[in-house]
Amino acid sequence: MTLLHTHSTTAPEQARALFRNGLRTPTSGWCAGYAQANLLAVPREQAYDLLLFTQRNPRPCPVLAVSEPGDPTTPLAPGADLRSDLPGYRVYRDGQLVEETADAREHWREDLVTFLLGCSFTFEAALLDAGVPVRHLTAGTNVPMYRTGSACAPAGRVSGPLVVSMRAVPGALVASAVQVTERFPRMHGAPVHIGDPAALGIVDLHRPDYGDPPVLEAGDVPMFWACGVTPQAAALAARLPYAVAHAPGQMLITDLPDLKLSGL
Amino acid sequence: MTLLHTHSTTAPEQARALFRNGLRTPTSGWCAGYAQANLLAVPREQAYDLLLFTQRNPRPCPVLAVSEPGDPTTPLAPGADLRSDLPGYRVYRDGQLVEETADAREHWREDLVTFLLGCSFTFEAALLDAGVPVRHLTAGTNVPMYRTGSACAPAGRVSGPLVVSMRAVPGALVASAVQVTERFPRMHGAPVHIGDPAALGIVDLHRPDYGDPPVLEAGDVPMFWACGVTPQAAALAARLPYAVAHAPGQMLITDLPDLKLSGL
Repeated sequence: MTLLHTHSTTAPEQARALFRNGLRTPTSGWCAGYAQANLLAVPREQAYDLLLFTQRNPRPCPVLAVSEPGDPTTPLAPGADLRSDLPGYRVYRDGQLVEETADAREHWREDLVTFLLGCSFTFEAALLDAGVPVRHLTAGTNVPMYRTGSACAPAGRVSGPLVVSMRAVPGALVASAVQVTERFPRMHGAPVHIGDPAALGIVDLHRPDYGDPPVLEAGDVPMFWACGVTPQAAALAARLPYAVAHAPGQMLITDLPDLKLSGL
Repeated sequence: MTLLHTHSTTAPEQARALFRNGLRTPTSGWCAGYAQANLLAVPREQAYDLLLFTQRNPRPCPVLAVSEPGDPTTPLAPGADLRSDLPGYRVYRDGQLVEETADAREHWREDLVTFLLGCSFTFEAALLDAGVPVRHLTAGTNVPMYRTGSACAPAGRVSGPLVVSMRAVPGALVASAVQVTERFPRMHGAPVHIGDPAALGIVDLHRPDYGDPPVLEAGDVPMFWACGVTPQAAALAARLPYAVAHAPGQMLITDLPDLKLSGL
């Protein structure tokens, strides 16, 4: 494997300890070979709508685990505290961002149900292994993410657009990137679109809605994957009374080997 | 395709009309090439636990669709009335069977949320195409189903054992049967066990808990697939106050081509 990132060989438990102690960083490129997860915690009262939303939109919302109300632990990362072991969190009230913090413990509630969802960072190590460059890793930036013009299937009060992440890939390697990522159906799987940002309703590829501006080299083709920010955007659009989510690009690093989530 | 069943070429809409008009029959072998679905309707109050149970146990509970409360229609079978268009229904109160009926309309409630789940009947046509005999189709009986000693992951008050269906396959074709069925991850996918009923806690293979006794020929190996009766058994064990389910083996025949649900 090409080791582009000094943290690619850090153990998940070690990484979580660094984040617990205050390190703020995007987790893309960290702990190669271990699955990363989006976190979204909502009150039990709204959890049915969100769970149904994930069922109806499996591509952007591949659920890995749903906790019991108030429980800050997960079998995906034994020993981890979901309230503190991610680099950063965002706290929302009625759909409005009220705080960004490195420690969500004081914002936790006994009725919060935590959803952990598959993240495309997981398949980036597999892309590198297959010789597909991952531009934002090389640049040390966050992956660019876009709200598209495609509406997800709504569930109760939760609805919103499909959000996608974009990776620019040399034309000769586009097919390989499809073949590699389709092996990870629980990590968004194959791309939802390849080539034309406008077809997805993306007006300016250089101005993503989340993350950093893209890095494109001559001959690159933009490839778009369904993104785990989708349920977060929908929960906000629904103005759920309360929600805690990972800060964009700052994921839970689990103890789950990537391979367990591949279709192999 | 080997046409073992005179109803294998019936159109789904036609089959549903026959069932609506009172025909009672197992649907295995009907409408080859179209997906069949388990039906389980529970009050909205209990729907979160059941939805979470399906999320935590995807092999036996591959959810195809979840309705809005009270809605007896589904996009999987436009024009169908879910209350009358299956051959038979079972109505449960507090986990006890109170009625078996060909028409559930008088038992419907405005708060019922209907779960439609993938069914292994779907891949039987693909098995036949691959030259794998399906013994219970040849015999004109219902597939045998067993409660195993393996507990599913519980969700709230819903918990119960894994239920499996069994097909006896000649040893030389066991690998083919794995290859064919793994292509249908939303229809239970590859077998959960091959060979030894005792390893699953099945005491007597000839006395299934649901369906008809198995047909085994010399040299056959028993193959076990996760079964969509699992959530129904769990809902009953949880003594949900009310539930309507398909009668064993009498499924919803959808308009959805099998291939749409294969991994291809």
